[in-house]
Amino acid sequence: MKTLLLNKEDVGGLISMKEVIGTVEEAYKAFNSGQVIQPPYTCIHLPPPRGEIDFKLGYCEANEIISMKSSSGGFPNNPTEHGVPSGMGTILLFDARTCALICVMDGSLLTGLRTGAAGAVSVKALARTNAKTITSIGTGNQARMQIRAIREVMTIEAIHAWDHHPQTLARYKADIEREFGIPVVMARSKQDAVEQADILVTTTRGKGSLVEADWVRPGTHIVAIGTDTQGKQELEPEIFRNAKIVNDSIAQCVE
Amino acid sequence: MKTLLLNKEDVGGLISMKEVIGTVEEAYKAFNSGQVIQPPYTCIHLPPPRGEIDFKLGYCEANEIISMKSSSGGFPNNPTEHGVPSGMGTILLFDARTCALICVMDGSLLTGLRTGAAGAVSVKALARTNAKTITSIGTGNQARMQIRAIREVMTIEAIHAWDHHPQTLARYKADIEREFGIPVVMARSKQDAVEQADILVTTTRGKGSLVEADWVRPGTHIVAIGTDTQGKQELEPEIFRNAKIVNDSIAQCVE
Repeated sequence: MKTLLLNKEDVGGLISMKEVIGTVEEAYKAFNSGQVIQPPYTCIHLPPPRGEIDFKLGYCEANEIISMKSSSGGFPNNPTEHGVPSGMGTILLFDARTCALICVMDGSLLTGLRTGAAGAVSVKALARTNAKTITSIGTGNQARMQIRAIREVMTIEAIHAWDHHPQTLARYKADIEREFGIPVVMARSKQDAVEQADILVTTTRGKGSLVEADWVRPGTHIVAIGTDTQGKQELEPEIFRNAKIVNDSIAQCVE
Repeated sequence: MKTLLLNKEDVGGLISMKEVIGTVEEAYKAFNSGQVIQPPYTCIHLPPPRGEIDFKLGYCEANEIISMKSSSGGFPNNPTEHGVPSGMGTILLFDARTCALICVMDGSLLTGLRTGAAGAVSVKALARTNAKTITSIGTGNQARMQIRAIREVMTIEAIHAWDHHPQTLARYKADIEREFGIPVVMARSKQDAVEQADILVTTTRGKGSLVEADWVRPGTHIVAIGTDTQGKQELEPEIFRNAKIVNDSIAQCVE
């Protein structure tokens, strides 16, 4: 029995965003047609200022693979005090025919790619086909991943971006324009940014009602990424009243 | 950041049963004094004739280590059809200060050693100090591990063993006598074996009431290993009526 070991660089060299989008699309179909067993995830919270580590499991009957992903996040002192990222991930793959461990790989890049791809799949399936502009509330790593993914499924003419920190916003603009050649407008306010959106992407830490209902134009497609656990919020509840709400796992979205 | 990789042979060369017993004793103390966070384990059942794979987590504050063990079992066709054991295991260790993955190691040997050590810790703490004879109902790998562990905490004068399969029983006798120099009596019946016991070790698949209450002498210390999940049974319920019952995690033993 052999186990394949892949570091982050290996993973990056083996997979493209286009493939991840196709795979995420297939995975949603498999999950929603009952071909995937996905137990609730388990979480260990560390004492502050440390964050948490999650363990997520899935068994896909179609390819007879069991996967386990550990994923940590919210360790602000990691880069300065320990020289490692504030969040890390590891993925194990098992051959479900025998439960032999067939692969151990870095999970941080795949996590970012997958979440980006999820946004793109939603745009492909649900956004208006004449959508041209994206508004990005939040300009960190996942905000970039969303653009990297969504540009695979539509032509983005412009991005209106907003961030608490002007320097972070300016870096986002420079990076996106250099990497993808898409013009980025640094918005003067969240409201200014949101009012321009055909597609609104939120990738913040979800610390409150960032987007007000009045700012959102009818027909806007919202990709709400930051609100990934109980207690986080990005959208004013009023937005949900008239929205068509689509999610991946209802069980993980309700209490 | 470096991650240590250890296969089964590496693990075997790095740790002794004596160390495992001491560590398991410390772990029980830490767990029962609230220094360990141990979420409920998660299990994925595969379609028959395949078995299951469990994922178990723990965070120990004392040494700032988070561990995850995957452990599969009950794949009867693995050895003949796929050339791998019927059960396998993998352990990940994370530095809880950063959640960096610091070690990936084989978990099958450690699982066997740990379970053996748990029996030995119970003997050390609870068995009569003049105990001399052990009865072993079941003669597989874990039956051997129990002897390997218990001999570290007492002098075993004789073992009375019983198994459904005479050949398996004979192999157990030969192995134990060669490896540990302890005489093994192949019992004619379960009752004959149990009636000789100062310490009774059961390591079967837990398919029913194997041991009757009338056979057990007062003061017998019972190490019940086989009944590790809901639906399994080794002891007649009447045995529990007059027994002092000690377990590691009450939450995992009751519904």
